Amino acid sequence: MGVLKGACMFGQSGGPTSVINASAAGVFIEALKQENITKVYGAAHGIRGILDEDFYDMGMEDIKELELLKNTPSSSLGSVRYKLKDVTVDDTDYKRLLEVFKKYDIRYFFYNGGNDSMDTCNKISKFMANSGWECRVMGVPKTIDNDLFGTDHCPGFGSAAKYVATTVMEIKQDANVYDTPMITVIEAMGRNAGWITASAALAGAKGHGADLIYLPEVDFDIEKFLADVKVKMDENKGKCLVVVSEGIHDKDGVLIAEKFAENLSKDAFGHAQLGGIATTLANLCKEKFGCKTRGIEFSLMQRCGAHVASGRDIEEAFNAGATAVKCACDGMTDKMVIFVRDMSSGSYECKYDVLDLNLVANTEKKVPLEWITENGTNLSDEFVKYALPLIQGEPNMVKEDGLPRFAKLKKVSAKK
Amino acid sequence: MGVLKGACMFGQSGGPTSVINASAAGVFIEALKQENITKVYGAAHGIRGILDEDFYDMGMEDIKELELLKNTPSSSLGSVRYKLKDVTVDDTDYKRLLEVFKKYDIRYFFYNGGNDSMDTCNKISKFMANSGWECRVMGVPKTIDNDLFGTDHCPGFGSAAKYVATTVMEIKQDANVYDTPMITVIEAMGRNAGWITASAALAGAKGHGADLIYLPEVDFDIEKFLADVKVKMDENKGKCLVVVSEGIHDKDGVLIAEKFAENLSKDAFGHAQLGGIATTLANLCKEKFGCKTRGIEFSLMQRCGAHVASGRDIEEAFNAGATAVKCACDGMTDKMVIFVRDMSSGSYECKYDVLDLNLVANTEKKVPLEWITENGTNLSDEFVKYALPLIQGEPNMVKEDGLPRFAKLKKVSAKK
Repeated sequence: MGVLKGACMFGQSGGPTSVINASAAGVFIEALKQENITKVYGAAHGIRGILDEDFYDMGMEDIKELELLKNTPSSSLGSVRYKLKDVTVDDTDYKRLLEVFKKYDIRYFFYNGGNDSMDTCNKISKFMANSGWECRVMGVPKTIDNDLFGTDHCPGFGSAAKYVATTVMEIKQDANVYDTPMITVIEAMGRNAGWITASAALAGAKGHGADLIYLPEVDFDIEKFLADVKVKMDENKGKCLVVVSEGIHDKDGVLIAEKFAENLSKDAFGHAQLGGIATTLANLCKEKFGCKTRGIEFSLMQRCGAHVASGRDIEEAFNAGATAVKCACDGMTDKMVIFVRDMSSGSYECKYDVLDLNLVANTEKKVPLEWITENGTNLSDEFVKYALPLIQGEPNMVKEDGLPRFAKLKKVSAKK
Repeated sequence: MGVLKGACMFGQSGGPTSVINASAAGVFIEALKQENITKVYGAAHGIRGILDEDFYDMGMEDIKELELLKNTPSSSLGSVRYKLKDVTVDDTDYKRLLEVFKKYDIRYFFYNGGNDSMDTCNKISKFMANSGWECRVMGVPKTIDNDLFGTDHCPGFGSAAKYVATTVMEIKQDANVYDTPMITVIEAMGRNAGWITASAALAGAKGHGADLIYLPEVDFDIEKFLADVKVKMDENKGKCLVVVSEGIHDKDGVLIAEKFAENLSKDAFGHAQLGGIATTLANLCKEKFGCKTRGIEFSLMQRCGAHVASGRDIEEAFNAGATAVKCACDGMTDKMVIFVRDMSSGSYECKYDVLDLNLVANTEKKVPLEWITENGTNLSDEFVKYALPLIQGEPNMVKEDGLPRFAKLKKVSAKK
C-alpha cells in the first residue's frame, strides 16, 4: 500500500440522525489535515450530487463552522435515497461516477449511511476496483435503527435512545397526573429492528418507564395487547404507558398500522387520514376500556433532537468519520468502520476497527430475542447494560439566545 | 394585618407544565422557613385531595428532594380538573372545604394553576372571607398557554416556547434534507391563544424557522392556506414548514380539526381514528400538491420537556411560589402573583407584584393582533422582543446515568 495522492469525496445518505453531521465533521477535519488528500469535496444529496457534479469545496469552510457540525442535526449537505442498479443490469450510473471521479481526481470516497448506503458504497468500491481506477472506498456507519451488522452499535442510535428514554420519563410524569384512568401509547421508529423502542426500558431502569414495550422482533397480537393493558391498569390504579415500534406486525408479518389503514382506505374518504399506530392503538383502548387515551408519535424529533443528543454518540460519530479517513490514508479500502466493545469488561471502552463492506451491506441486526422478557413486553437487564453506556455525556451544544447555534456552511461549489 | 399563625395548604391544578413543580418548590421551601406557618400540606390532586382529606405533610420531605422539584416536570402531587359550583347554587363543596380548613387549622391557602384554577381560588377566597374563617388565599400563576390576564407572562410559557423554538429548528434541518418536495405541518398547543405556536417565530429569528405560522387569533381559511403553501414552495424549492395551533378555526369559529372529524365520525368506522390537525392538513397538501408530506404533533412533549426548559422560567416559577408565601405572611390575601416587566428598558428584569383574584379569574389574554404579520402567517419583531428573553438560561438539570434525576417525594399522609 503506497502513497495515494488525490481528492476525497464525502456523501451523506439515508434518513438523518442527530449526529450524522458529527461524522461529516470527522471526515472533513481529518481529511483537511492529510497531506495526500489534495481536495476535500462534500456531495450535495449524496450519490445524487456526485452524478450531477453538484458538490462543495469543503476547504473553503471555516474550521469553527465545521466544528459546529457536531451539534447540528440532520444532513447538512443534504441526503438522498437512491439505490444503484446492479452493475450487470445497468452500468450507466457507474460509468458516470467513474467519469466524475476521474475528472476531479477522486482517490478517496467516504459514504455515510445505513444498510442501503453501505450497499451503494460496496457497489461503487467493487466497480472502481474492477475499472482499474485506484480509489480507496470507506463506509462510515450511521443509523438510529442500530441495525448494521458487525458493529457493536451504530452512530446515531445512542442519541435516539437518549431522546426516547428522556422523553418517556417526562411523559410518564405528565400522562399520569390526573386521578382518573389514562392509557398513553407512544410510537417510536424502527421498522424491522426494535432498538429505538427498546430504549424506553432505560427510562424503566430509572423508575419512570413504560409499562409495556412492543418490538417488531415479537409478533403482535391485538387481543393479547388489550389483555396486557388490562393487567397493567389493574396494577397501576388505572394508568398504563405503552411504547410500540412503528414496525409491529402480526404473525403473518402484516404491519398492525397497515391492517387498520386498509380498513380506512376502502372507504375512500377524501380528507380523512388514519392516525399513526399510536393513535390507532390508543383508540382501540378507548373503545375497550372506556377511559381517556392518548396516542403520541415521536416522529422526526427522535432522530433530530440534537439538544438531547448523547455526548458519547457525538464523539464516536466524529471518530468514525476521522477513522475512515485515517484508515484510507493508511491504505485500506472496501471497508466500513465498526465499533468494538468488550461487554465482559466492567467499564465502557469503544475501539474502532473495520469490516469488509461485503459483510455489512444489506444485513440487519435485530434485538436478541433473549433480551426480550416478561411476556414479550419488556427488556432484560442485559439490554440496559448494553444501551445505557451509549447515552452518556451531554451534547455541549453552543447556544445563542438560548437556542442552538447550528453550523452555517458557505457551500462553495467545486470548480468544474 | 397582624400575625396569623396556622397551617398552609398548597395544591396544583389544571394541565401540567415543565415548571409547575418549581412553583411547588418555591411555596414549600419558603413556607417551611416561615415561623407563623405551623404545618405545610400538599394536596393530592388539588382541590380533590382537600375535599377527600388526602394530602401530604411536606415537612417530612428532604429539602434536597424539594429542590429537585425545580427540574421535575408535571405536577408531582397530582393535578385535577374540578370546577367548583357557584356557591349560591350548591355550597356543599365549600362547606366541606371549610370543615377541612378548620380541622387542620389551615390559615394559608396557595393554589397553582391557570384560568380555571384562579376561578377556584377566587371562589374559595370569597367563601372563607364570608364565613369568617381567617385564611389568606393566594393564587400562583401557571400555564403554558400564557393567557392569564394581568401578568406580563406566565410560568410555564417560557419552557414551552423554548421546546417549540428548539424543536422547530431541529425539524427544519431534518424535514428539508432530501432533494424532493416536502411539506411538513406541526401542531402546537393553544386552543384560544396562540402564544405557544407563535414561539416558532423564535426559530425564525435564528434563520431556521417555519415558513408559515397560523394562530387561533386569526380565522383560518383552507383555500388561503393552500395558496400560502404554494407560494412558499415556489420560493423554497418545493419545501414548506408550517406550524399551526390546535385551536385554528374558520370564520364561524368552527375548529378546523372538528370540521374533518365530523366527516369521519359520520362513517362510524369501528377502529379508524382521525389524525390530529397536523396530519389532516398534511394530507390535504398531499392531495393538492402530490408531494411527500408529514404531520407532527408536539403533544405532551411541549409541556413536559423539562430537559429543555428555560432556566429563567424555572427561576421565576420558583419565585412566584415563594412570593405568594411571603405576601401572605405579610398579610395579603385574595390575590394572584403577577410578573411585571418594563418593555421599554433595554435589559430584561422581572418584578413580582400581585393582582386581585377577581380581575384574573376567567379572563384570557391573547396574542395582540398587531404582532401578527405577513398575511396572518408570521409574527413581528415585537413578538420576538417579548418572547426571546423568556427562554433564556439552561435548566441545570441533575442527571444520573445521562437521564434526569426527578424528585422522589415520600408523600407522607397528613395525620388525620
